[in-house]
Amino acid sequence: MSTGSLYGPVQADLALVEETLQTVTRVDHKPLASMLSLALSGAGKRIRPALVLLAGTFGDYKLDVLVPLAASVELLHAATLVHDDVIDNSEVRRGRPTVNKAFQNSIAVMVGDYMFAHAAELVTRTESLEVIKLFAETLMMMAKGEIGQDVQAYDPRQGIQDYLQRIAGKTASLFATACKGGALVAQAPPHWIEALYRYGHHLGIAFQIVDDVLDFTGDEAELGKPVGSDLMQGTLTLPSILVLERYPHDNPVQRYFHERRPELVAEAVALVRNSDIPEEAHKVARQFGQDALKALATLPSTEARHTLEGLVEYVLRRRS
Amino acid sequence: MSTGSLYGPVQADLALVEETLQTVTRVDHKPLASMLSLALSGAGKRIRPALVLLAGTFGDYKLDVLVPLAASVELLHAATLVHDDVIDNSEVRRGRPTVNKAFQNSIAVMVGDYMFAHAAELVTRTESLEVIKLFAETLMMMAKGEIGQDVQAYDPRQGIQDYLQRIAGKTASLFATACKGGALVAQAPPHWIEALYRYGHHLGIAFQIVDDVLDFTGDEAELGKPVGSDLMQGTLTLPSILVLERYPHDNPVQRYFHERRPELVAEAVALVRNSDIPEEAHKVARQFGQDALKALATLPSTEARHTLEGLVEYVLRRRS
Repeated sequence: MSTGSLYGPVQADLALVEETLQTVTRVDHKPLASMLSLALSGAGKRIRPALVLLAGTFGDYKLDVLVPLAASVELLHAATLVHDDVIDNSEVRRGRPTVNKAFQNSIAVMVGDYMFAHAAELVTRTESLEVIKLFAETLMMMAKGEIGQDVQAYDPRQGIQDYLQRIAGKTASLFATACKGGALVAQAPPHWIEALYRYGHHLGIAFQIVDDVLDFTGDEAELGKPVGSDLMQGTLTLPSILVLERYPHDNPVQRYFHERRPELVAEAVALVRNSDIPEEAHKVARQFGQDALKALATLPSTEARHTLEGLVEYVLRRRS
Repeated sequence: MSTGSLYGPVQADLALVEETLQTVTRVDHKPLASMLSLALSGAGKRIRPALVLLAGTFGDYKLDVLVPLAASVELLHAATLVHDDVIDNSEVRRGRPTVNKAFQNSIAVMVGDYMFAHAAELVTRTESLEVIKLFAETLMMMAKGEIGQDVQAYDPRQGIQDYLQRIAGKTASLFATACKGGALVAQAPPHWIEALYRYGHHLGIAFQIVDDVLDFTGDEAELGKPVGSDLMQGTLTLPSILVLERYPHDNPVQRYFHERRPELVAEAVALVRNSDIPEEAHKVARQFGQDALKALATLPSTEARHTLEGLVEYVLRRRS
């Protein structure tokens, strides 16, 4: 599937979202303007705003509220990336320097705050208290998920359920909110709103699992960041949890958590790549993909629904 | 004036705000719960929530919306402190360890985000889109003010106007929003809302100037943080700007910015203490205090108005 047609009937309208995001960077404060440009630049997939618009097609497709909402979702996502990069002390994202690397950690914290505030301002343009509340709750869930990840760093006592719970908050909550928010402002029927929320949740989990597998199996140039960076930060994801489960007595993940020698991360990456762990993890992602498709079953058979179905396939197959 | 009567007619209702803040710390996530307790503990003056309630008396004093709004303002303030402490790498605040010191910088970023999100959730309980928008804009102004402070760190080319603009965003915007928000949800008459907004703005500027003077003249035990900490971070405030203006050719502030030797901070502190600079800075603060009082002139002569007048005096006289 070419990227050109990836978002089907809403592809063209995404340009309006992009325009709105560009206005965010136009502030009368030069250093802030260039930091915002950096944070919002790069070839982001813009999948979250696309979900907002696609969900909006199942009701009254009003661009005057859907576009600010879509921009808000993307800005919220970009803000969390800015803070994540501070936390992880990351230097590269999507092949470009991170805000914290290009400027300073301290400034990046405030730039992220500014972006959160601006995302809040954009979401108020929907004039929907329900959507605004949904956003506040989603941000709370995302922060909780990230705190969980930080608190559990370098702790090998984590199973698949801990992991799934963590990524539900960290990633799936915003996917689900993008879908639900779009359907809400379009005043879609309640059971469709519910179905789209479930779709977004399952799609988000599948997306994150694939992301976490790519952190082991991907190509550094394609990923735009070093391979094995999650593990390097002490973060267990599905592949490293499977390593711990398969080799409970001795494995490079456990040894890395004890000794913190970077060579052990490379060893863990090699172990995963030369095993069927990526395949097993993908199987879990595919199950969530199946659940996402099931959630769509009650929706009318429109071009937007087929696009959402295609996105499941895209998320499962992506290489970066 | 004893603290007992500081907030006059709304003193008792502040206990309800405290209760709401306590519920924020009750989360089913132990590490987060203790971090939130730490961030919200300590003898905060709770002046911002008091302003919300006092402003609310000029309209329909409805506690069911004023209390969540007041708690939201305080939570927003506490969230910015958590992020400020990360940025400044501060170790002590109000005599207690900071969240970043007690836990980790990285986790403190996320705890602050969680608090922002929860503040957003609380403000939605007012069901007022206008107040929600006001909050989003205020957070943007605060973040801009902080970014300005960071970008200008260690830059001696800053005058009093730069400083006043910075603290207008960083501090006065939330004071003004507390007053305006309280009056808005109470549906006070528009010209009273406007007057309370101006009062809050001027009070906030005066408050920050006094704060910045205390950073030089205060007692470490009373302040709950080291003396001279602003300058140590490279932040120019009114007293250090006055040092630069008075001794343009050679002074310890300029030398500290060049050489970064901590002894020079102690030298600058001593220079300020042994001069009339604190008095001159206080004079500027008093002018803003006068403007705050003038803004109140159009309001009816109620107990709440007298309390607001008394707060100007309190802010100007405070020692910690």
